[in-house]
Amino acid sequence: MNTDTWIALDWGTSHLRTWLLNSSGEILDQRHCDQGMNNLQPDQFEGVLLEQIDDWLNFETITQVLACGMLGSRQGWIEASYDSAPCAPGTLLTKAPVSDPRIDVHICPGIKQLAPADVMRGEETQVAGLLTDAADLNTVVCLPGTHCKWVRIVDGKITEFQTFLTGELYGLLAKQSVLRHSLDTTAWDDQAFKSAVDESMAQPQSISAQLFSLRAQTLIGDLSAAAANARLSGLLIGLELANSKNFWSGQQVTIIGESRLSEHYNLALQMQSVTTLQANSETMTLKGLSLAHRQLNGA
Amino acid sequence: MNTDTWIALDWGTSHLRTWLLNSSGEILDQRHCDQGMNNLQPDQFEGVLLEQIDDWLNFETITQVLACGMLGSRQGWIEASYDSAPCAPGTLLTKAPVSDPRIDVHICPGIKQLAPADVMRGEETQVAGLLTDAADLNTVVCLPGTHCKWVRIVDGKITEFQTFLTGELYGLLAKQSVLRHSLDTTAWDDQAFKSAVDESMAQPQSISAQLFSLRAQTLIGDLSAAAANARLSGLLIGLELANSKNFWSGQQVTIIGESRLSEHYNLALQMQSVTTLQANSETMTLKGLSLAHRQLNGA
Repeated sequence: MNTDTWIALDWGTSHLRTWLLNSSGEILDQRHCDQGMNNLQPDQFEGVLLEQIDDWLNFETITQVLACGMLGSRQGWIEASYDSAPCAPGTLLTKAPVSDPRIDVHICPGIKQLAPADVMRGEETQVAGLLTDAADLNTVVCLPGTHCKWVRIVDGKITEFQTFLTGELYGLLAKQSVLRHSLDTTAWDDQAFKSAVDESMAQPQSISAQLFSLRAQTLIGDLSAAAANARLSGLLIGLELANSKNFWSGQQVTIIGESRLSEHYNLALQMQSVTTLQANSETMTLKGLSLAHRQLNGA
Repeated sequence: MNTDTWIALDWGTSHLRTWLLNSSGEILDQRHCDQGMNNLQPDQFEGVLLEQIDDWLNFETITQVLACGMLGSRQGWIEASYDSAPCAPGTLLTKAPVSDPRIDVHICPGIKQLAPADVMRGEETQVAGLLTDAADLNTVVCLPGTHCKWVRIVDGKITEFQTFLTGELYGLLAKQSVLRHSLDTTAWDDQAFKSAVDESMAQPQSISAQLFSLRAQTLIGDLSAAAANARLSGLLIGLELANSKNFWSGQQVTIIGESRLSEHYNLALQMQSVTTLQANSETMTLKGLSLAHRQLNGA
């Protein structure tokens, strides 16, 4: 075991991703499990983590663990500090309480914005990753996910951001509402998606009626389960774009996300004639955590 | 056992309400359980019903059971017929398959509307109840609930209706989303509700961001759990009112619902200077089912 190895964690609401890296940031091993913070009590985090990484550890050295995500929320392992926008992604790490002598766990700070009130935990680390190659970047970043974030970056600082519940709404509606009978979350229809984005942007106030209409159209109309799924996604993303226009209008947008969801946002933004760049969320998270690791060690 | 007795059922998504009545419509007994259609397979409905009403039955006579609600949906006991709007609430009952010789189960027809596609199951029986006292009524009816219906009635006919997912959205968000940590569904704040109705009607496109903001305002602001609950309700009802304006603007509205939820709709509508009447949903359901029972028996 190389004493230079360290461990990166992205511990979100529904998933835990772990990576073993060397000091150059090369991935030596990685794991993924669905033990998200959502179903864990604070005193359960260390045990779940050790199950994932036990064979990466040894008693000769203390392995540093750098973490970001919802594990730092009030319902997480321990509430980590917040930086306050406008600010650059921060470096004031919070140590998590551990009883195992082999690990030393540090959680990256979230970012809060007082007016309008908003918070992020995890996305700031992806933004830090994006900024490692261009510290004085000026751009708008869209981070699709459970809680999609729109972030304005001026000279490398996060000056403003807004969170949309889009992904969580999609999940609840697709899997737990009456609509679950009407749609197939594994199927897709680009044209149905695009029409729904258009309709929702033009009439955002109709969303609650449009949602029930998906049910009615599959019952008494000829809407397919694939089209219903794409329409649901399109209605919700269109609603988000209707309200995030001050972020994307006339701007180049960098989308940081997983590939499939990013592609849907990309499609919707191209319909608004917005130029986009895409970056992979996992890559940006690892770059951001690597930066935090270097800073922790004075590098 | 009086052979004139009959049984009324309101079998919705999450609840089953049963009443034993005499031929004059007087309630002799009633029960309530949470075995809604949501978790039942078609072949389980008869058994669940018999558990509720077994002691109301005898082998000397066949007891008529008149039912309305989601038990008549495609995922219910048996898919009952639809009338097609514009129409009066219908009388073409669908018989449910039963193996017990003591009961004869009839399900009231739902109503469908082709353009825009929409469906109702249960609310048409409440409207029928309202119409028993005024067969040529002209009014707009609002039926708050899981799937809130707005119904335009001209000369006793349902000419147009629209369904909003408002109640189901509230339930999913309050109990299953990240907002569950931020609000207390048993607490309330009238002023927070009213502000949220105003904000949502003025900027309906902001709903997805406003929802996440409830979380942020309880984390880093001073929003109480009671105010967060009332704000969630107000945002969703305001969104509904923003899109149902063509129903309520300049009209007198009859609200049929359970008392607490009706009061919230009443408050929001009064803010729009709309005059309202209120009727109890259970009373209207029983009036509607009693009418169906009389018609079935040629009375």
